[in-house]
Amino acid sequence: MALSLVLAESAAEIVPEGMRGHPEVRASARKRGRRPGGMLLDNSLHYAAMRGLADGHKRGRPDLVHFALLAATCTPLYMGGGGALRVYVHTAGGDVVELGERVRLPRSFDRFSGLLAGLLAGGGDGGGGLLRLRRGLGFGPLLEEIGPEIAVGLSSGGAPGTCAGAAARLASAGARGACLVVGGFQKGELSGEVRGRLDELLRVDGRPLESHVVLSRVLYEYEKTVFM
Amino acid sequence: MALSLVLAESAAEIVPEGMRGHPEVRASARKRGRRPGGMLLDNSLHYAAMRGLADGHKRGRPDLVHFALLAATCTPLYMGGGGALRVYVHTAGGDVVELGERVRLPRSFDRFSGLLAGLLAGGGDGGGGLLRLRRGLGFGPLLEEIGPEIAVGLSSGGAPGTCAGAAARLASAGARGACLVVGGFQKGELSGEVRGRLDELLRVDGRPLESHVVLSRVLYEYEKTVFM
Repeated sequence: MALSLVLAESAAEIVPEGMRGHPEVRASARKRGRRPGGMLLDNSLHYAAMRGLADGHKRGRPDLVHFALLAATCTPLYMGGGGALRVYVHTAGGDVVELGERVRLPRSFDRFSGLLAGLLAGGGDGGGGLLRLRRGLGFGPLLEEIGPEIAVGLSSGGAPGTCAGAAARLASAGARGACLVVGGFQKGELSGEVRGRLDELLRVDGRPLESHVVLSRVLYEYEKTVFM
Repeated sequence: MALSLVLAESAAEIVPEGMRGHPEVRASARKRGRRPGGMLLDNSLHYAAMRGLADGHKRGRPDLVHFALLAATCTPLYMGGGGALRVYVHTAGGDVVELGERVRLPRSFDRFSGLLAGLLAGGGDGGGGLLRLRRGLGFGPLLEEIGPEIAVGLSSGGAPGTCAGAAARLASAGARGACLVVGGFQKGELSGEVRGRLDELLRVDGRPLESHVVLSRVLYEYEKTVFM
């Protein structure tokens, strides 16, 4: 029995070309000793430059990706290894970053962001293989490759459910395992393209919760189901 | 019924005076446009300067404080307000930072760290009252002020238990409420001074887990107990 976690349509991307000349972007790059084309779009740094950007509410939040990945990778389920939890970041741009086994991610946001930027910009080795880039793979092909028996998404637009219910559903999968899909962005819904690939879409709380909170809860309930 | 969360002996402090002349500290301050005396000790920036520091393994980890506070404040329990969850950071140096109600902390580590540094250095207003400093209050007096019916600490050195068990114990408290105490540092045990003030000390997992993980789990179980 194996579980995969996909952080879908994650708000992590290199600063888009058309934005690299913006004074705010250039200043933030200079301060960090990077090229604008070698750093992540980040709305806490590039707020003015991002004004008017299409889908801006779903972009430029590598901080949320960091929290979500730490919430997932600091669980006994992941830390125990053995492929019990596989973790993937699918970006809004269609790239996929696959985490190795028992990866200890940088706790420092600057280091995490540098690592991910290097990988996405094409110049990094993903921290010596901790992270592996599958450029442009896309959500559908990723899910086909994982090949789970069931794919369950969490979204405030889903059917009413609970974290324990979602976990039980995931744990009920047979040898091909299950896949949990959570949005890696701040606001809004999973796109139709992603939703269309899921077997179930659940809302596990009455109010919208951040990704790190819902995935912590479902992974914890899943652990209780499979470890006990 | 009210719950308080104390992040105890947290690894957050202003760079100590004797370290402010260290080239690494001066360079990291210059890069951020701050004085060394106005920034937090951070082992991802001050690794060389911290070598040989007493209790170094329990210091200089404001990143962990950030994750733990986000894990706590992004829960429905805290976001719902009404004093259902009060949150305190007790630092290793004995200061106490009290969060207001329904505070939305900066997700950006740089901003969080700037906010906390300003407060601890004495020059900040805690983001317009989001955070309130009680300098040198200490753990014992804080706990007396909170005055809970029961104080439960989580530590890998505690008695075997579960997150659900810890939550049930907290939820069993009467009108005076309960207090959950989690270490705000990377490694090691809560000090004897803190342990001596607790009614129970529990180990909720077989392996040491990071603070954000255990507190997420116990708060979630507590929510299930009191909301359902």
